[in-house]
Amino acid sequence: MTLLDAQVTRPLDGGASFSLRNRLTRVVWMMAWLVLARFTPPPLHAWRRLILRAFGARMGKGARVHASVSIWLPANLELGENVLIGPGARIYNQGYITIGARTVVSQRAHLCASTHDIHDPHFQLVLRPIIIGAGCWVAAEAFVGPGVQIGDGAVLGARAALFDNAEAGGVYSGNPASFRKPRGLRKED
Amino acid sequence: MTLLDAQVTRPLDGGASFSLRNRLTRVVWMMAWLVLARFTPPPLHAWRRLILRAFGARMGKGARVHASVSIWLPANLELGENVLIGPGARIYNQGYITIGARTVVSQRAHLCASTHDIHDPHFQLVLRPIIIGAGCWVAAEAFVGPGVQIGDGAVLGARAALFDNAEAGGVYSGNPASFRKPRGLRKED
Amino acid sequence: MTLLDAQVTRPLDGGASFSLRNRLTRVVWMMAWLVLARFTPPPLHAWRRLILRAFGARMGKGARVHASVSIWLPANLELGENVLIGPGARIYNQGYITIGARTVVSQRAHLCASTHDIHDPHFQLVLRPIIIGAGCWVAAEAFVGPGVQIGDGAVLGARAALFDNAEAGGVYSGNPASFRKPRGLRKED
Repeated sequence: MTLLDAQVTRPLDGGASFSLRNRLTRVVWMMAWLVLARFTPPPLHAWRRLILRAFGARMGKGARVHASVSIWLPANLELGENVLIGPGARIYNQGYITIGARTVVSQRAHLCASTHDIHDPHFQLVLRPIIIGAGCWVAAEAFVGPGVQIGDGAVLGARAALFDNAEAGGVYSGNPASFRKPRGLRKED
Repeated sequence: MTLLDAQVTRPLDGGASFSLRNRLTRVVWMMAWLVLARFTPPPLHAWRRLILRAFGARMGKGARVHASVSIWLPANLELGENVLIGPGARIYNQGYITIGARTVVSQRAHLCASTHDIHDPHFQLVLRPIIIGAGCWVAAEAFVGPGVQIGDGAVLGARAALFDNAEAGGVYSGNPASFRKPRGLRKED
Repeated sequence: MTLLDAQVTRPLDGGASFSLRNRLTRVVWMMAWLVLARFTPPPLHAWRRLILRAFGARMGKGARVHASVSIWLPANLELGENVLIGPGARIYNQGYITIGARTVVSQRAHLCASTHDIHDPHFQLVLRPIIIGAGCWVAAEAFVGPGVQIGDGAVLGARAALFDNAEAGGVYSGNPASFRKPRGLRKED
């Protein structure tokens, strides 16, 4: 059993869904972020990158994570080069979350990589990784649901809630989010 | 006039919508939760149950309320046995809120039991109780609107916003939330 | 170039989207609000009005802004008489935001007056002012998108996300929000 595994438990009876090692790791992680990063000024991205790497996150060159971002477990996170995670965003990565280069996750967006088995009267926890491509934009307060894959260059509009996969280069919005139009990317000047 | 009654006022002119007794009670309540519970570690559910009961909440055996939950007035809250209210959830119970046994309210969900009369130029406050059945799941960041009743075993998906009643055993999602499918609960093993 | 102008930059390469003067102003503003207003009790509206005016907000007589409201730049804000901005609301006014007399913006609503050019691989920031009329209600956790204009007396329901203009006296809800019915305002008694 690895650090990432959830246990088969009955959350409603008070059982913990994760191993003791996982839970202790997260206590240390939360304290470390609170003391070392939570109140750092915005430009200190290199410092926060260092802390995230120390806790096991794969961080591409220039990846920037704001101080008010909440991350469940850095070891479950991979950010490509120059990824930007905006203020107040929530990386709820009980399952693994991968984000491609140059993707922007705006303020208070929420990536949620786990759910509960609704066919189970005990609501067993289910981990479902999220994969977001390169050059995407997840706009302010959008929600990306468990198991979702987003193709390169796609845009998820503000407050949109995406539960299905999104095609590369598509613009998605609404709750539930659906395809609206191709993004129509200009050529680089 | 009881503690629960709203006054007939004109909020736009600066009038308070609740009695002085209600407002003082809430100041004491907020201070008590902040000092005694807000920074307690997750496992201390019995301690937080004690505080909630002291402020008038009806709490079933094993009902668990996380430290970061926000409750408007405990006296307006009834939780069945083993109910779980997740981190950051908002119980905005200006009107009474009742939640049945074994129901899970996930992280940052919002139950809002009041509204304003939109036909009134003064936006008079209107209290509308919420009743949620047993064995339900209100998923992450979902919203349950004023006056809504949710039948036993129903599921409200992540980020869904429900303004109508939900049938027992139904799965609802979207904003506004609508019926998607029956939950299809497995038999207990 | 004025305080309000965004610069032409490439946010993904780490360039700031706003001038140094704008950024310094905002640091001072955030510190001032944190120290002087953030922990003031609800009734001290006149005091918070004073601070907002000192930082350049146009505040009508009796306009009330709760202590937990987040405002990006007061100089980009104009509130009419008796406007009420509820707890936890977010005035993300990178673009200018104007709100008419007696309008209520409820708890945790979000007004977002900027976006990114999705046709630009560098996601250039675009400022798009929001104009909300008089006697409107933006309900709890609703979202008003960039460039939106809302006519007098319109209602945007709880959790609704509005990206198009709203007609005077209309009731809008859903995500994306759409017209549901005329408000049907009673005559004053």
